Amino acid sequence: MASTAQPSSLCFSLKSSSSFKGSVSKSTFLPSNSIKLGSLSSHLGSGRIGLHVDRVKAAVRMSSTQAESPAAVSSNIKMESSSSGVLPTIVEVDLGNRSYPIYIGSGLLDQPDLLQRHVHGKSVLVVTNTTIAPLYLDKVVDALTRDNPKVKVETVILPDGEQYKNMETLMKVFDKAIESRLDRRTTFVALGGGVIGDMCGFAAAAFLRGVNFIQIPTTVMAQVDSSVGGKTGINHPLGKNLIGAFYQPQCVLIDTDTLSTLPDRELASGLAEVIKYGLIRDAEFFEWQEKNMNTLIARDPAAFAYAIKRSCENKAEVVSLDEKESGLRATLNLGHTFGHAIETGFGYGQWLHGEAVAVGMVMAVDLSRRLGWIDESLVGRVHSILKQAKLPTAPPESMTVEMFKSIMAVDKKVADGVLRLILLKGPLGNCVFTDEYDKEALDETLRAFCKS
Amino acid sequence: MASTAQPSSLCFSLKSSSSFKGSVSKSTFLPSNSIKLGSLSSHLGSGRIGLHVDRVKAAVRMSSTQAESPAAVSSNIKMESSSSGVLPTIVEVDLGNRSYPIYIGSGLLDQPDLLQRHVHGKSVLVVTNTTIAPLYLDKVVDALTRDNPKVKVETVILPDGEQYKNMETLMKVFDKAIESRLDRRTTFVALGGGVIGDMCGFAAAAFLRGVNFIQIPTTVMAQVDSSVGGKTGINHPLGKNLIGAFYQPQCVLIDTDTLSTLPDRELASGLAEVIKYGLIRDAEFFEWQEKNMNTLIARDPAAFAYAIKRSCENKAEVVSLDEKESGLRATLNLGHTFGHAIETGFGYGQWLHGEAVAVGMVMAVDLSRRLGWIDESLVGRVHSILKQAKLPTAPPESMTVEMFKSIMAVDKKVADGVLRLILLKGPLGNCVFTDEYDKEALDETLRAFCKS
Repeated sequence: MASTAQPSSLCFSLKSSSSFKGSVSKSTFLPSNSIKLGSLSSHLGSGRIGLHVDRVKAAVRMSSTQAESPAAVSSNIKMESSSSGVLPTIVEVDLGNRSYPIYIGSGLLDQPDLLQRHVHGKSVLVVTNTTIAPLYLDKVVDALTRDNPKVKVETVILPDGEQYKNMETLMKVFDKAIESRLDRRTTFVALGGGVIGDMCGFAAAAFLRGVNFIQIPTTVMAQVDSSVGGKTGINHPLGKNLIGAFYQPQCVLIDTDTLSTLPDRELASGLAEVIKYGLIRDAEFFEWQEKNMNTLIARDPAAFAYAIKRSCENKAEVVSLDEKESGLRATLNLGHTFGHAIETGFGYGQWLHGEAVAVGMVMAVDLSRRLGWIDESLVGRVHSILKQAKLPTAPPESMTVEMFKSIMAVDKKVADGVLRLILLKGPLGNCVFTDEYDKEALDETLRAFCKS
Repeated sequence: MASTAQPSSLCFSLKSSSSFKGSVSKSTFLPSNSIKLGSLSSHLGSGRIGLHVDRVKAAVRMSSTQAESPAAVSSNIKMESSSSGVLPTIVEVDLGNRSYPIYIGSGLLDQPDLLQRHVHGKSVLVVTNTTIAPLYLDKVVDALTRDNPKVKVETVILPDGEQYKNMETLMKVFDKAIESRLDRRTTFVALGGGVIGDMCGFAAAAFLRGVNFIQIPTTVMAQVDSSVGGKTGINHPLGKNLIGAFYQPQCVLIDTDTLSTLPDRELASGLAEVIKYGLIRDAEFFEWQEKNMNTLIARDPAAFAYAIKRSCENKAEVVSLDEKESGLRATLNLGHTFGHAIETGFGYGQWLHGEAVAVGMVMAVDLSRRLGWIDESLVGRVHSILKQAKLPTAPPESMTVEMFKSIMAVDKKVADGVLRLILLKGPLGNCVFTDEYDKEALDETLRAFCKS
């Protein structure tokens, strides 16, 4: 058993305080328990990890403008030529001159000005896939071109699935962009889930050494997590997301209506990331989820709007503090090291990302318990909420201890040969990012979840 | 004939003045005519191009520390554990927290501390090619590891030539890095010419979303131009350098001894870029070249050291003012739009980059003359100096007007459908980056240089 000392670990906690400037929604859906999003309270361990303290402690500005009244919103966002429609909730990602808004709401794809204000050149390339194109492509093209004849829209439709998130598929985006003679003033638009967002974003980062791009996420996974924060990239046969760029979009537009066409399994997959935010930094959000998971699974629009907004607020705050993942941002990867090993080992596209992350979180929680860092009861609560969300809690039977070990060895969080993990520590809502854990306990966890 | 008005053009000139802070070499080789590198005097046309004036007019700091005495250098650069050897000339590329030094000198690969101070993790991946590896790989590995047992060096040796600057070859770098389990703290080292530097830099930008890298250029082309300034990338079958990133190295180490093994044709190719600096912004440097080209062609070490230093100073100043090519930096591409068309149309690797650029400069000068923007005599001087440098002055016979036009249409300098060109205007050392030129004159130039 590891000692409680953590000389080279970072501890991040959310001690619900009241200095956070965001306002809380008074919209149609009000959570049953009063919620205040507390300020981030981060402190460093005394150890050796070279985290940039100034960056982590930097002040964070995050405007959460879910409307108390339409007037309150219009002070943040000009709607000069707004079509009819509900004003969006706006979460700001504060990154200096790379800051951008996340628009959240129902019917936003029917408000062309939201997209058009972020398109500056005369051409747009919409990158989408075979599943999403028949559902939303016409709508997006209309939103880009309505009363805006100067813009020409090109489209590239990729095959759907994690197994296509590779260099070969990425080249199809470059081929289309170059054949269409798009120039540096073009804007790429990612229309789809996490795979499309990651690939389109990386293509935008690399095409002509960088063009603008916009995220229109259509899955829960992309809306609550992957579309925000500028991580882009593709997989390598030996590991997930090993090739890519930090590259921020001009805006993220989340039309919650797109969830109506999302398969149940995809919906559940996204909830894994929602649950993650609660576990690593937002205990009250986790407790709200425990009470409302059935409502979410039933696709209650107001509950979903709230879960998306609160998830984006958490993500935006973390990204604003640590864009390039010097430390704090790594905590967003709770369960992902184990999860990526499942995705890579079991075959890209076999399991959805969130399904693998769900199991990864169970394994991280198991390891945290073996280390004596969390209360036994939390193990049961994590199992219970994942079950409610209809997510798996054990890896595929074909995964072996050796598969986990060899794939985790190329994880991006390995530093100078040592694997750093995100583990829970302390009361609900607290975690550490550390390489100081008992490696024997990790072996015990792997053996407990694998048959060989 | 176009009018002299230039409403949407930018004019950049070097009016030799004395406010520039760099000091001039008092080293072994002193140019026959006294040279002072003047301050950049840039002014904007009154037109529509959205250049960021503040960036172009930003103050530039560039320390040119070729030694007056060893003591003067050591105040800029610590040589705590220096091996014996000549202290390097240092040109600083001033980019805020992405600033870095260019070390220039003879025997620098025998000074391990120069490289080792810029390697922070425990692993290095040297990216080189089949031509350079037998010549310098052992020397570089020795420089990285001497008295430094904690660093492990991996190597990937790529095929040599512009025709291999593509995604397929790039993937070999990722494969090696991932198979070797390199992590985010690794450093990539580009050992070779421009192709290796561009590919290794882009690989470093994208591997795990960005790792450190170092440039060790071994050709004149790379030493005077491509290794400085952070432009990285690969070619697409339809155009040069269309996929890439702006990504700055930790340092550039130019050991002028590596030129001893450079073929004559490669040497001449690099001189095209040296001549370019004179034409676009440094008349005195051009005049020095006119007097000393035969000395350069004869590989006089002191002449070369001076030409490299002065080229790097010009490049560093431009890059410091306009890292992402909002305007000024584009002027470094004099002749490149025509040149890239030749490289793409004639087949990557058939002509060397500088050979194509030489012809491209002749064509740009021809167009400038047709527009009435330069004195007739400059046409002859450009022809003459290129001939002296043993560079071509006409495109391959197979190039047609249509080939030029279709390839130039995907050039990165096209904006909203209009091709912007770098053209000379005014006295020697002045140029413009503009889309406001008589398109009929461009057609005349193309017809003058093509048989069909």
